[in-house]
Amino acid sequence: MNYLGIAALLNSHQPGFSLAQPFYTSDAILIFEWQHIWQKNWLFAGNTAQIPKPGDFFIYNLQKDAIIIIRGNKGEVYAHYNTCAHRGSAICLEQKGNAPKLICPYHQWVYDKDGTLLNARMMPDDFCKEKFNLRSVHAAVVEGLIFICLAEDAPDFSPIKKSLAPYLMPFKIKDAKVAAIKNYTLRANWKLVAENFRECYHCGGAHPEYCSAVIGANLREDTDTLTATKQKEWNEKTLATELVEVTAGTTTYAVRYPLRPGVESYSIDGKKISIPMGMHKDHDAGVVGLVNYPNFWMDAVSDYIWTMRVTAVTASSTDLEFCWLVDANAIEGKDYDVNRLTQFWEITGEQDGQLCENNFRGIETNGYGPGPYAPVEDQVINFVEWCVGEMRKGFEK
Amino acid sequence: MNYLGIAALLNSHQPGFSLAQPFYTSDAILIFEWQHIWQKNWLFAGNTAQIPKPGDFFIYNLQKDAIIIIRGNKGEVYAHYNTCAHRGSAICLEQKGNAPKLICPYHQWVYDKDGTLLNARMMPDDFCKEKFNLRSVHAAVVEGLIFICLAEDAPDFSPIKKSLAPYLMPFKIKDAKVAAIKNYTLRANWKLVAENFRECYHCGGAHPEYCSAVIGANLREDTDTLTATKQKEWNEKTLATELVEVTAGTTTYAVRYPLRPGVESYSIDGKKISIPMGMHKDHDAGVVGLVNYPNFWMDAVSDYIWTMRVTAVTASSTDLEFCWLVDANAIEGKDYDVNRLTQFWEITGEQDGQLCENNFRGIETNGYGPGPYAPVEDQVINFVEWCVGEMRKGFEK
Amino acid sequence: MNYLGIAALLNSHQPGFSLAQPFYTSDAILIFEWQHIWQKNWLFAGNTAQIPKPGDFFIYNLQKDAIIIIRGNKGEVYAHYNTCAHRGSAICLEQKGNAPKLICPYHQWVYDKDGTLLNARMMPDDFCKEKFNLRSVHAAVVEGLIFICLAEDAPDFSPIKKSLAPYLMPFKIKDAKVAAIKNYTLRANWKLVAENFRECYHCGGAHPEYCSAVIGANLREDTDTLTATKQKEWNEKTLATELVEVTAGTTTYAVRYPLRPGVESYSIDGKKISIPMGMHKDHDAGVVGLVNYPNFWMDAVSDYIWTMRVTAVTASSTDLEFCWLVDANAIEGKDYDVNRLTQFWEITGEQDGQLCENNFRGIETNGYGPGPYAPVEDQVINFVEWCVGEMRKGFEK
Repeated sequence: MNYLGIAALLNSHQPGFSLAQPFYTSDAILIFEWQHIWQKNWLFAGNTAQIPKPGDFFIYNLQKDAIIIIRGNKGEVYAHYNTCAHRGSAICLEQKGNAPKLICPYHQWVYDKDGTLLNARMMPDDFCKEKFNLRSVHAAVVEGLIFICLAEDAPDFSPIKKSLAPYLMPFKIKDAKVAAIKNYTLRANWKLVAENFRECYHCGGAHPEYCSAVIGANLREDTDTLTATKQKEWNEKTLATELVEVTAGTTTYAVRYPLRPGVESYSIDGKKISIPMGMHKDHDAGVVGLVNYPNFWMDAVSDYIWTMRVTAVTASSTDLEFCWLVDANAIEGKDYDVNRLTQFWEITGEQDGQLCENNFRGIETNGYGPGPYAPVEDQVINFVEWCVGEMRKGFEK
Repeated sequence: MNYLGIAALLNSHQPGFSLAQPFYTSDAILIFEWQHIWQKNWLFAGNTAQIPKPGDFFIYNLQKDAIIIIRGNKGEVYAHYNTCAHRGSAICLEQKGNAPKLICPYHQWVYDKDGTLLNARMMPDDFCKEKFNLRSVHAAVVEGLIFICLAEDAPDFSPIKKSLAPYLMPFKIKDAKVAAIKNYTLRANWKLVAENFRECYHCGGAHPEYCSAVIGANLREDTDTLTATKQKEWNEKTLATELVEVTAGTTTYAVRYPLRPGVESYSIDGKKISIPMGMHKDHDAGVVGLVNYPNFWMDAVSDYIWTMRVTAVTASSTDLEFCWLVDANAIEGKDYDVNRLTQFWEITGEQDGQLCENNFRGIETNGYGPGPYAPVEDQVINFVEWCVGEMRKGFEK
Repeated sequence: MNYLGIAALLNSHQPGFSLAQPFYTSDAILIFEWQHIWQKNWLFAGNTAQIPKPGDFFIYNLQKDAIIIIRGNKGEVYAHYNTCAHRGSAICLEQKGNAPKLICPYHQWVYDKDGTLLNARMMPDDFCKEKFNLRSVHAAVVEGLIFICLAEDAPDFSPIKKSLAPYLMPFKIKDAKVAAIKNYTLRANWKLVAENFRECYHCGGAHPEYCSAVIGANLREDTDTLTATKQKEWNEKTLATELVEVTAGTTTYAVRYPLRPGVESYSIDGKKISIPMGMHKDHDAGVVGLVNYPNFWMDAVSDYIWTMRVTAVTASSTDLEFCWLVDANAIEGKDYDVNRLTQFWEITGEQDGQLCENNFRGIETNGYGPGPYAPVEDQVINFVEWCVGEMRKGFEK
């Protein structure tokens, strides 16, 4: 599949229909998407709560772009490629840890947390150290969520910040506590994961636990009255309720919707999971649903946050990282049980993972052709058209 | 390897010699073969005895073409791609089972056994259901053997039917019982498997069990007199004996030949395995050997049938399915022992599998070049020339 | 990556800097290297001590070029592709053994040790046996080291022989005993392994055991006086000391350098490992370090030899074979302990293997770019420029 082939496929795309097979199965198209979607947009990397102290770091592996996400001395966050400027060795060999300095294990070149080359032993006197700092990428933080951008010139981060901050602020994520992180690999194209998380047409059939917690998720219940009542209460508590939709030039979706009456949290029994997070005083903040194209998902209730980081590996393989955050003061065993905390999204995520893998298996067959999205899948259409638009931009220059 | 490269290789092929290395090792050529051999010809899928009741189905996975083979309400057989017309999800998640209706597990679109879309919930009023039936492929049955064709226009099935039916009829396969199915994957090109099964030049050195059962398999015994005597007996019982050979425009080979005197079945001890199948009254029907290019092999004796389905996966990987059928009335433990039943072809198949894998390992080396087939490998030449001919047709249009 | 792309990359190579990313990660470039480096130069295959008797053989698997290395009746060494001239089956199915004749397991064609086809049963009378000998490759031996060349016309072997023989001769390798062989696969490009073994810039940080044995390996100790003294002693014993460097048109490096005073062998405790090899009378011959581009390494001390055979598998995968040789008369359990013998290079090799894999992981990231070699990495530069030069020759014709 060369550029002409990709262009032809993009031209033949019919809005309202799922994409042609190669968009889900071709590694050549994945490379194209990588260049024109993943390397151009802001990507969710993780939460500052994962790296509370100076020198704390974790690695975000995206394709071949292993990125060190590291805390500076004043709380700032840096992002560098995990490759030494000398002969290219990986510097951080563990997936997370603490490094007062970044020292290459091969020949001991020493870098500061901000990527500055501090020492390169035995190099000649005329060696220009300034030319051999670590190669860094853009990093930005909104209320404790870390985003990076691999582009030389990153797009403006402020629309994302502006959209997400009002919803995030009450949770005080930067002071939150990482209660659990779990990683999964699905045999499915990354867009199928994204599509799956943008519609509830499948929820009634696939997610009994989720439908028990979220009124209307089965698409059979009228929630207008309840939502109106709740929004009024939330506004009185100064909780954000304004729907943010992805429109031309933006990548963010944000919404708050009610849990089923009597349900306190995302839990199998409907009971609360932990103490209210941050500024919340009760278990009545509903659900905050946040999305940022292409790879960020977050579902938060009053007492915990679940973030999902999606990473395309190949056309047929996608990595997921689930992270559960609780209030800074929540004590494991007393305020929350980690198994109860993770249970809801492990069950729901497992269901979605199987749906995505089944979807991919069917798309792989030669019998597949683009099919029509249902009206209730309008957010899927929004995502698919966004992807098509981003790829089309790749032909504009 | 592009089309020009494949054309040049086909042009340089020397009849009587094995194929050039890329025909056995190149995935580009496998894709070409898939288009011009596998997607154009009738392929053996399985036996109707595998799906006796309405709604019984199994999946035939060939490359990315997962096909649902399902029984209709009146005994008819349908073949559909296992992909929903909505968003492409796989519909049948198990490799076999029973489905009164085909219901997509993602959003519950419902199809009839013949592929008709019966219900697509929440679709708009103007949704044209007729346009979104399952995509079907051709299916044909001869005396209980199911063949499918992935081509838009399938070749005439009647020559296959006409060639095979006289040999198959006495076995009453449609009423037979599936006693065992086993699946194998070989690290070898599919054509090497086919070549291996078209000559007995290797039998004397490789197959002591087979040579004990089949007189002349070692190519050292004169079987003319015995064969003539036996053919006369078989003809008196109205058993087919006319040799069918693959000639221009046909794909079928059929033969009946004698077992070693005193041998009653394909068994290690030469003794019978089960009660005679179908219309057979004794254990004296010899061996019925049937082949249909590119993927069907069958060796049957009076009391059981062994079918082999060959499926190319990659240039270097081939799936085999062995199926053993016994008479409808044969009772396991009383009339036959399943381990004795499968032993003969498991042993012989294992020997052949190793020969094929060794053959492939040698062909992979740069030291390989086409070598001369021996005169006793004339059927191998026939198969290889057929493959070359089918591929050449790919350049005709 | 096509030829134009490779040419452009070669043109943009900056001497003194590590290679551009694709030279380490692209399989297209590995294929190009295979053609222009591996298939043109002499490759170390193993030691004659591995095949002491007529008919003894081992297989050297390089890419798809499985080569049988076999002893003839008069001690000579032959090298043949492991593929039958009939239908291409692998002939030797085990990785080593003894074969009075080479008999194909498929149809029993029989070849002599020198590759001559002796018998092809059931072939027609006009079959020209002389045309179907095994396909052989060049083999040459210097003092018990076996080299092969896959080229039609092999380069002159005498410069290699002349450079290595004086260093090898005292060890009497052809009479030596193979004490251990171990195989490893690294997830790293083969050139990173070669680069790693051409510099000690990393030794101080990575190899405490090696630095305990070899004075100056940490690059912090002055060894000039000791070396001068030792060289005088070695010359008096007629041991070779003349440094051989890789220059235009040659591929061989040879050196002798001292162990740390008091250290008798490459061992963790510095004590001797076995009886002196061949003509050596004491444990004071220092270290003989030999290299032949692209794939041969040898480090020998008075009482044992360690050879390393490097084989590129893919751009990201490299096979290593370590072989330990001791004197013909050394008796296991009495004169040496095999665990002590292999310990030093297993530890050091494991350390190097991890460095190479880490190096590769970092080079894979998009953050990698060619970096400057340190002055003490001059031998690495030599190797890298040799590779670049060999590849450039691929464009000359």
